[in-house]
Amino acid sequence: MKLENDLLLRAANGEKTERTPVWVMRQAGRILKEYRAVRGKLSGFIELVQTPDLAAEVTIQPVDILGVDAAIIFSDILVVPEAMGLPYTMEEGVGPFFPKTVKSETDLNKLKTADEDSLGYVIDAIKVTKKELNGRVPLIGFAGAPWTIFCYMIEGKGSKTFSNARKSLYKDPAFAHKLLDKIADSTINYLKGQISAGADIVQVFDSWAGILPTEQYDNFSLKYISKIANAITEVPVIVFAKGAYGSRKTIGEIDCDVVGLDWNMDIVESRDLIGPRKTLQGNLDPATLYADFNTIKSETRKMIDQFGKSRHIANLGHGVYPDMDVEKVKCFIDEVKEYSSNL
Amino acid sequence: MKLENDLLLRAANGEKTERTPVWVMRQAGRILKEYRAVRGKLSGFIELVQTPDLAAEVTIQPVDILGVDAAIIFSDILVVPEAMGLPYTMEEGVGPFFPKTVKSETDLNKLKTADEDSLGYVIDAIKVTKKELNGRVPLIGFAGAPWTIFCYMIEGKGSKTFSNARKSLYKDPAFAHKLLDKIADSTINYLKGQISAGADIVQVFDSWAGILPTEQYDNFSLKYISKIANAITEVPVIVFAKGAYGSRKTIGEIDCDVVGLDWNMDIVESRDLIGPRKTLQGNLDPATLYADFNTIKSETRKMIDQFGKSRHIANLGHGVYPDMDVEKVKCFIDEVKEYSSNL
Repeated sequence: MKLENDLLLRAANGEKTERTPVWVMRQAGRILKEYRAVRGKLSGFIELVQTPDLAAEVTIQPVDILGVDAAIIFSDILVVPEAMGLPYTMEEGVGPFFPKTVKSETDLNKLKTADEDSLGYVIDAIKVTKKELNGRVPLIGFAGAPWTIFCYMIEGKGSKTFSNARKSLYKDPAFAHKLLDKIADSTINYLKGQISAGADIVQVFDSWAGILPTEQYDNFSLKYISKIANAITEVPVIVFAKGAYGSRKTIGEIDCDVVGLDWNMDIVESRDLIGPRKTLQGNLDPATLYADFNTIKSETRKMIDQFGKSRHIANLGHGVYPDMDVEKVKCFIDEVKEYSSNL
Repeated sequence: MKLENDLLLRAANGEKTERTPVWVMRQAGRILKEYRAVRGKLSGFIELVQTPDLAAEVTIQPVDILGVDAAIIFSDILVVPEAMGLPYTMEEGVGPFFPKTVKSETDLNKLKTADEDSLGYVIDAIKVTKKELNGRVPLIGFAGAPWTIFCYMIEGKGSKTFSNARKSLYKDPAFAHKLLDKIADSTINYLKGQISAGADIVQVFDSWAGILPTEQYDNFSLKYISKIANAITEVPVIVFAKGAYGSRKTIGEIDCDVVGLDWNMDIVESRDLIGPRKTLQGNLDPATLYADFNTIKSETRKMIDQFGKSRHIANLGHGVYPDMDVEKVKCFIDEVKEYSSNL
């Protein structure tokens, strides 16, 4: 089906667009009262992720309410470890918790490599979403980067230092590579499943990129992101490695189409490091949306001026915070559209 | 009193030294069984901080056991908000909690500016430590940077995003500046008190430097660190701004003597940005100490080669993790001493 609005895909492919496309990380979520209404009827976040009709409903809400140029499937990066054999729970305000973690070679060998069908509820949610979106905007699929998933599989929960995950890179690099490779293979299958079901573009989120020294990051994370990017040939690939300041040049060499910048990455410096052949995505400081409307507009214009009109997908530099005012989020989106149209 | 070992002070002042001085952030703490023995007799961390004889005892332990070239007074950055009128509790594995936070101008106006005498227990601990150190090595005093203290005063506890603290910078910058300035004045008084009591050098820790966009970091954090550095003329000042990748050039222009690098800051790039006139401190990845002895040695040598022999104080790029093996920490320290002696 031909998309009515394919700005995001054309920008990802480096084609000229009439204006800069825009979406917002965590656009489907607690900022929307319509989301909270759906969520309030369920036992928890994971039930929402696992109920395709409702996941599709909240995926589409920001398209209707905020006017973003893409939907992103409502899901969680931790469905991959679940599909590999490590179920998790998610407590409001506490975060994810895995009762079982990977402590040994035996644990590792017990893990399955996820296949295209192993996350049926996400695949179904994508199918429902595509049908209901009816070609209005592209649908973004996503997965966590192997390094970030590895952190949770070793640690079992969030951590300030992820020192156990980091320990394993130094103590047993062969073990770490084996697990990372298994996660990468699972992620490739999973993303291919999402694409078969209808995802028009996919994003790989590396939330914990910033904790590794550059050399280790290249060796234990980018290596596997690169494997994924090489394997996904069907649709464009976005790589968002939060905090990977020292690896931007290397990320520019990966076979991906779009590189996401966090809010602390200098735009001009990043373009210089990444080179002219990638589309950049980002990167307004999410906290800007706490400011007044005029400040949001002027900061948005400043950002667009720095990125320039081509090869840019506007976004925040991180997910929107749950307590943010929808009208402020909308102000950012509207300003991107209006200002970039007149450039 | 003349110090037997003044390597750290000479390096801080840019003088030539026979070898590279070395200490370790969080050297006094849970890595040492001798620390755990003292701590185990008390009700909690805060009682230890507030008991001068015991704080002095654990301050000196790493000098005896690890052979570091400096002691750092055992205390906490959160004693400053406490002295300003916001007491806190510290729960093992949970972190700090402030029952009262700063929510309004009224709250702000109620806060005291700490004076030199308001943290008597730290001052006393420094006096006892100096006496018992008996000139063996210098004693480092310290405080949190105003921005990091501000985060806790607004948020009341740790946070992944410190979104409330960040919100206030956008919503009411005048309020934020007023509070930051009050914290800076308190910190100056507090550090001057530490220096009067015997601290030979002081370090300002900006733990949450990395969450602000560069322009805001310069405006809301470095401005106040600079005020502190200008006011402290008695002893050298170390500034450690974790994650402030975009502000290294600006930090190089502050009137401080030493700039701490975190483990992800490229050494050569940092020297280039900061310039030749500061001593650099750091920055081995703390997780390296999970590796085998040979790896620790080779990574330590690699780090020393990159810094060069002069204007360097060796350290980890962040605090040592509590579960690390003392022998590995010692291996790092010994290797710095031996390898740099032969350069």
